Amino acid sequence: MKTGAPPRRPPIRHCRECGAPTAYRVPDDGDTRQRAICSACGTIHYENPLNVVGTLPVLGERVLLCQRNIEPRWGKWTLPAGFMELEETTAQGALRETDEEAGAQVTLGPLFSLLNVPSVGQVHLFYLATLHSDRFNPGHETIEARLFSEDEIPWEQIAFRTVRATLERYFADRRTGHFGVHCIDIV
Amino acid sequence: MKTGAPPRRPPIRHCRECGAPTAYRVPDDGDTRQRAICSACGTIHYENPLNVVGTLPVLGERVLLCQRNIEPRWGKWTLPAGFMELEETTAQGALRETDEEAGAQVTLGPLFSLLNVPSVGQVHLFYLATLHSDRFNPGHETIEARLFSEDEIPWEQIAFRTVRATLERYFADRRTGHFGVHCIDIV
Repeated sequence: MKTGAPPRRPPIRHCRECGAPTAYRVPDDGDTRQRAICSACGTIHYENPLNVVGTLPVLGERVLLCQRNIEPRWGKWTLPAGFMELEETTAQGALRETDEEAGAQVTLGPLFSLLNVPSVGQVHLFYLATLHSDRFNPGHETIEARLFSEDEIPWEQIAFRTVRATLERYFADRRTGHFGVHCIDIV
Repeated sequence: MKTGAPPRRPPIRHCRECGAPTAYRVPDDGDTRQRAICSACGTIHYENPLNVVGTLPVLGERVLLCQRNIEPRWGKWTLPAGFMELEETTAQGALRETDEEAGAQVTLGPLFSLLNVPSVGQVHLFYLATLHSDRFNPGHETIEARLFSEDEIPWEQIAFRTVRATLERYFADRRTGHFGVHCIDIV
């Protein structure tokens, strides 16, 4: 996952249009929430959740994890994932992050998990993916990319609760042979 | 759907932290995309897709549509939906919009569709929902909220392609008796 936006975002202090100071108040347009409103030009600044998109790459009995070379959670293990960008779909973003973080070539499968993390204003989406080989070429955000069988997963060293929940559902589904779409709230 | 953010967002001209002018360039941190970077304090401003969350409310054989009282697409029909807010989950946002736009009380069902609209930087998510009654109390964004059977749907007057695609999949699934999770790219 990229270092991009901080998990808890700082307030908007200045207007993106004209640079004047903003103040948080409820707009006069029927809105019910406080927004950062420009004191000079009146521009209303909306703040909304971000999507994090990634894959659960599988090769036979094993899944691919990446050891993080960035904060937060340096040294912990994660699935390849990062902030969705403009001009891409959730699936395209998931493939891009898999290439950037693991240097792994995959064939994308179906959506597997949608996890809400309202405490940090994020929605995480993971797709199943089939690895083309066990050769990886991780980018600068990853110390090591390697395959783990279920009994090798470093459960105590998983970087994010969304990754842990996704992995748990995957191994449970694999035992039943039926892979659903899992919607989970991390509260 | 709320009037919130414009479909194609204007560039970020000033820094949200200090108000100084920004310039678009690729940051020096390994990023590959142009970002609005502050000329004074160096703050990097990320721009990411927004989620629109809503429901497909059902009462027996009929579904609920709302006639829009706001631009864009004033007078066209839509499912209740709007921009996801901070501090809520996708499901909570879908319920909130159903209450705000239709004044409809529902029991939320499973996620039904996830639609990417990369041309406007949006992801739309619709949940199935069961209406408690045929009494609605629409808000100021809605001219009228009413129930339609399949052969009454005003297909030529549907406000958004994501709503049309969701309704089409719903009636198709209803014929088979099996409701899946539909991932669709609107390109």
